[in-house]
Amino acid sequence: MKKILGFDLGGTKVLAAVLDNDFNILSRVKMKANADLGVKSVYKVICAVIKDACDEAGIDVSDLSAIGGCAPGLVEPKTGLVYDTPNLGFKNFPLQEKLSQDFNIPVHIENDVNAGLYGELHFGAARGMENVLALSPGTGVGGAIVIDGKLIRGSRGGAGEFGHIIVQPDGPLCGCGQRGCLEAISSRTALSQQILSFAVRGRVPLVIDEAKGNLKKVKSGLIARAYNSGDEDVQAIVDYAARYLGVGMSNLVNSFNPEAIILGGGLIEALPEPFLKISTKVMREKAMGVNGEKVKVLAAELGDDAVIKGSAQLAAELVR
Amino acid sequence: MKKILGFDLGGTKVLAAVLDNDFNILSRVKMKANADLGVKSVYKVICAVIKDACDEAGIDVSDLSAIGGCAPGLVEPKTGLVYDTPNLGFKNFPLQEKLSQDFNIPVHIENDVNAGLYGELHFGAARGMENVLALSPGTGVGGAIVIDGKLIRGSRGGAGEFGHIIVQPDGPLCGCGQRGCLEAISSRTALSQQILSFAVRGRVPLVIDEAKGNLKKVKSGLIARAYNSGDEDVQAIVDYAARYLGVGMSNLVNSFNPEAIILGGGLIEALPEPFLKISTKVMREKAMGVNGEKVKVLAAELGDDAVIKGSAQLAAELVR
Repeated sequence: MKKILGFDLGGTKVLAAVLDNDFNILSRVKMKANADLGVKSVYKVICAVIKDACDEAGIDVSDLSAIGGCAPGLVEPKTGLVYDTPNLGFKNFPLQEKLSQDFNIPVHIENDVNAGLYGELHFGAARGMENVLALSPGTGVGGAIVIDGKLIRGSRGGAGEFGHIIVQPDGPLCGCGQRGCLEAISSRTALSQQILSFAVRGRVPLVIDEAKGNLKKVKSGLIARAYNSGDEDVQAIVDYAARYLGVGMSNLVNSFNPEAIILGGGLIEALPEPFLKISTKVMREKAMGVNGEKVKVLAAELGDDAVIKGSAQLAAELVR
Repeated sequence: MKKILGFDLGGTKVLAAVLDNDFNILSRVKMKANADLGVKSVYKVICAVIKDACDEAGIDVSDLSAIGGCAPGLVEPKTGLVYDTPNLGFKNFPLQEKLSQDFNIPVHIENDVNAGLYGELHFGAARGMENVLALSPGTGVGGAIVIDGKLIRGSRGGAGEFGHIIVQPDGPLCGCGQRGCLEAISSRTALSQQILSFAVRGRVPLVIDEAKGNLKKVKSGLIARAYNSGDEDVQAIVDYAARYLGVGMSNLVNSFNPEAIILGGGLIEALPEPFLKISTKVMREKAMGVNGEKVKVLAAELGDDAVIKGSAQLAAELVR
């Protein structure tokens, strides 16, 4: 019986896994991808990691029925053309077509947040549901949409940009150039910036100790440790972000009337309690009655496997 | 060849029309419906107007292949149960089932904003499109969603409540009890309230003259006349509402990546220029590149016929 391969092209690494037809993961291989070396170099890493994952599973690439992958950016829904990946330098790169030709099998390429939600839909927190949204505060705030069991990608692949819902018209500046986007308030990046601005004033001692003024070191784990150590500044910053996540969620609930919102990403994994509790409370306060009452707010269950399994599921659907 | 009947159940009247198979309107009948007399009384008016529209078209009710109607409130997607209509007193009323039994033909009941967008999709401003949103500032701000050519109603019929997207977290109070909903800023009701608060101060002379402090008399036509007469207070109020409509539109564009947003309702018909121009400008400024660039913002084309034709189209699909 042929196998399926799923891969996750991230900003700095490529992860690939071979799965059997029950979507059990048989092998898992990770390689660094240096975007500074150019798109061709990253593409070579993708090919290498696919081959290595097959080796690791004791199969040949020709034993695969299909490959499903995802990329961190805009992907054209029908062709799998990768329009734009801010952190990887892919611009209009025909990733789906190229892999399909080079490996001579069907390939599906998806946006990574979409793939993750599809994984949770088939194998994780959203199993058995039909209308679900994903919201993932991380470097930015990612979003994805499933309606009637299908991913909704919009007319040019740009649906689900929930990070750029404006929740404060004159709020903090966002990386997109606008003010008051959800991402400018509730992403890990926004949290890190605010926490560091306190560090400059000599507050948030744990952060000063561990991160030493380096924004990149203020990761989800450190934020969680400071939060759980009782640092009131960090708690106020996180709780504020969670409240605005709830405002964004109420807007989504009023727009989509979903069965559930799946919250995912490292920040939610590190601080599930304040994020789920506070954002759910605010959402239920603000959403319209029928919409807000029944919607479930759930933490993603599959972690990094969500995108691998979702990508593999999308690939499997190509050959069914 | 059998005909189709479409009807529009509004807050104070019922409008019905018989259409041929090319969706030409053969007859049109309107009757007042007094919600104060109770649901049974309104239901009788619906039945009477259906029969009268058939008479007017020179056909018998048995010459209809199907009936499609819409109601101004939450409608359960599969059963056509009318959950709730704030202005009509319908609560969990099985309108679709009851009409279907009483007239012994297939009936489809839809939310009115959904029916209107479906009409514009098949016969009006959105012809030939697949991914479209409707936004209708009136008493409230209505919304509707078409994805891949199909109406999206959400898990319990509550999708598309775009009037309750929060665009100013601490903004003006909304009828739903929240603050800063789009409806609290950009609906005709919100405009009328603001304009009257100026009238109390002796400003907005045309409004003082014509409306005499009566909120109900500050309708779209009067607002437009005051705007076009050069009243700077009214212009400032309308332009502000249009800017926030643009903020709401940018949120929708980032969430749905539609091909077009269709702006409809009496306010847009009365003041197309400021609303389309200002809201489109703000939306393009604020939406993400790929999403904001290509989306069209169009005025609805069909007026009151949109809901009739959309309802009839949905009914026709029952019997095809």
